[in-house]
Amino acid sequence: MAGGPGTRLWPLSRKDRPKQLLRLIGGRSLLREAFDRLRPILPPEDIYVVALADHAAAIAAELPELPRGNIIGEPMPRDTAAAIALSAALLHRRNAETIMGVFTADHLIRPAERFAQIVRRGYEAAAEHAEALVTFGVRPTEPHTGMGYVQRGEAIGPGLWRVKSFREKPDLTAARQYVAAGDCYWNSGMFVWRTRTILAQISRHLPATHAAATRLAAAWDMPEGPSLAAGLYATLQKISIDYAVMEKAEQVLVLEMPVEWLDVGSWTALPAALGRDARGDTRAAPRTIAIGGGGNILVSESDHLIATIGVNDLVVIHSPDATLICRKDQAQQIKDLVAELEKQYGERYS
Amino acid sequence: MAGGPGTRLWPLSRKDRPKQLLRLIGGRSLLREAFDRLRPILPPEDIYVVALADHAAAIAAELPELPRGNIIGEPMPRDTAAAIALSAALLHRRNAETIMGVFTADHLIRPAERFAQIVRRGYEAAAEHAEALVTFGVRPTEPHTGMGYVQRGEAIGPGLWRVKSFREKPDLTAARQYVAAGDCYWNSGMFVWRTRTILAQISRHLPATHAAATRLAAAWDMPEGPSLAAGLYATLQKISIDYAVMEKAEQVLVLEMPVEWLDVGSWTALPAALGRDARGDTRAAPRTIAIGGGGNILVSESDHLIATIGVNDLVVIHSPDATLICRKDQAQQIKDLVAELEKQYGERYS
Repeated sequence: MAGGPGTRLWPLSRKDRPKQLLRLIGGRSLLREAFDRLRPILPPEDIYVVALADHAAAIAAELPELPRGNIIGEPMPRDTAAAIALSAALLHRRNAETIMGVFTADHLIRPAERFAQIVRRGYEAAAEHAEALVTFGVRPTEPHTGMGYVQRGEAIGPGLWRVKSFREKPDLTAARQYVAAGDCYWNSGMFVWRTRTILAQISRHLPATHAAATRLAAAWDMPEGPSLAAGLYATLQKISIDYAVMEKAEQVLVLEMPVEWLDVGSWTALPAALGRDARGDTRAAPRTIAIGGGGNILVSESDHLIATIGVNDLVVIHSPDATLICRKDQAQQIKDLVAELEKQYGERYS
Repeated sequence: MAGGPGTRLWPLSRKDRPKQLLRLIGGRSLLREAFDRLRPILPPEDIYVVALADHAAAIAAELPELPRGNIIGEPMPRDTAAAIALSAALLHRRNAETIMGVFTADHLIRPAERFAQIVRRGYEAAAEHAEALVTFGVRPTEPHTGMGYVQRGEAIGPGLWRVKSFREKPDLTAARQYVAAGDCYWNSGMFVWRTRTILAQISRHLPATHAAATRLAAAWDMPEGPSLAAGLYATLQKISIDYAVMEKAEQVLVLEMPVEWLDVGSWTALPAALGRDARGDTRAAPRTIAIGGGGNILVSESDHLIATIGVNDLVVIHSPDATLICRKDQAQQIKDLVAELEKQYGERYS
């Protein structure tokens, strides 16, 4: 899954250039990282990317090894339930025995070897437990209210448990309890399941989406596919797979994934992903120079120089047509800024 | 005079693009402002620009009305004594009765009408007092140690005095005394004199520069001119006309120039020149957007957007290949930064 607008990574992330394509990690994009993470497990022809159709050309350029037909282009953003329903329906038509993994392109995951090892075990678990939805659980490091929490129950294998409860985005009190409990994981947003099984669950909990996805998959390669897609997709409920299915499904398993798992969805997440230099600055910019100050996050994808004198705890992002200077502790206001931008300048900078 | 490197206005000002050509004042350059200030008094063919030869093409482009031969190109920077000696020698060869005004292009001067009125009186004073060097004095507003101070003596006309003493860049104690005294002006760096008179003074106080300027003026339009200029200019003492001549000359007059006179030689001078918006920001950028914060100086010559969230008292300058983010109270360190830049990146950004 490589959808999502990435507004919190403005001004690098734009409507026509999603965050997954930003080359923030040593000059590599998150999409490239995600693709390469899966390559030890899967050949390119078994990897599919579901994303906005508008981004298909950029994705193809970023992943030349990926067969062009493996990019599943959504006409518009409709959250993860729709993206997963469409993908599952398409894969299921090609082979009704498919075991399908769902992986996000928003995170840095280290070490890659351990990720591959756990994902392999996920495929094995989904093969063995045909009716189960297998999710990967990451140990929570803080009571984050933006996450989904998975409470494990009965152990059924090494690092594998039945899920007792699944709670998306709890309040802070609940999140603290989950973290303290010791038997809870963050839902990583990554799953493995038979296409048959997830489609049955979607059919039960989100029947309109299931019907649309099935109809769309049948017409996908036909001339009327694109116009049908645009019409049908617009009617779909915008809801995540977590709310729509995972919270309600009965047979959910959780496989512990003991990796470093970093959401790179906001600028303030970069220091954890990229580290800090001697003055405490985090730099994803080939050319910087500083006198005094520190604790800044400095980003440019080009050799545009960022020079700082005496400034502390700022986010400074250079893009070809816009520069953002933001206090680190006010970075959550970037969304408001982008909304305001559209009022003032239309789509010019968004 | 439109020389000077303008390091304090980095990253907009560069070796190949001096501060006089920056379009900071409502999209107009300081050079254009200076030229237009003189136009009510002088026709274009009587206006000369002395500047680095390397900048001649850019100056010609900025002032298309100026005859191309009126750009006096210096092979290298040698401070104001050399620039004035060369200009005076050239003008003197063309007409030995010339009265020459010297005007800087570093300042904003308002209102332009009063400037023109006082300059006219300067020319009259120089015509009447053939042996005098006439300087324009501006009322000091603070005990600035980077200025020259002119103490007036005997009054010899409306707003016109003999100069009792001339003191370039005093220490703070002396500067305070000059400001408190009430009979002192800042030397504006603008003068009027007969070419005959200033050349005699240069000959007396800076004989080598006088000899070189005379020799150069004679060869200026000849084929060997440029190579002679390069060789001779390199040998000249780098000294200002203030130290070399004005402090020592006996017949100096000062004409009070009651104008608003703003040095636009550093970023922190911009608020006085351009004003502040409702949040206290000073903007010389067509496209800005802000949430919270204020008291910033935001500059871009292009439609590159500068977006700020919650930041206060910063200097943010966008140029095509470098961005500066600097605390306002540390802007004097820009020179150090440029020096450090050259160590790290050579001439790439300087």
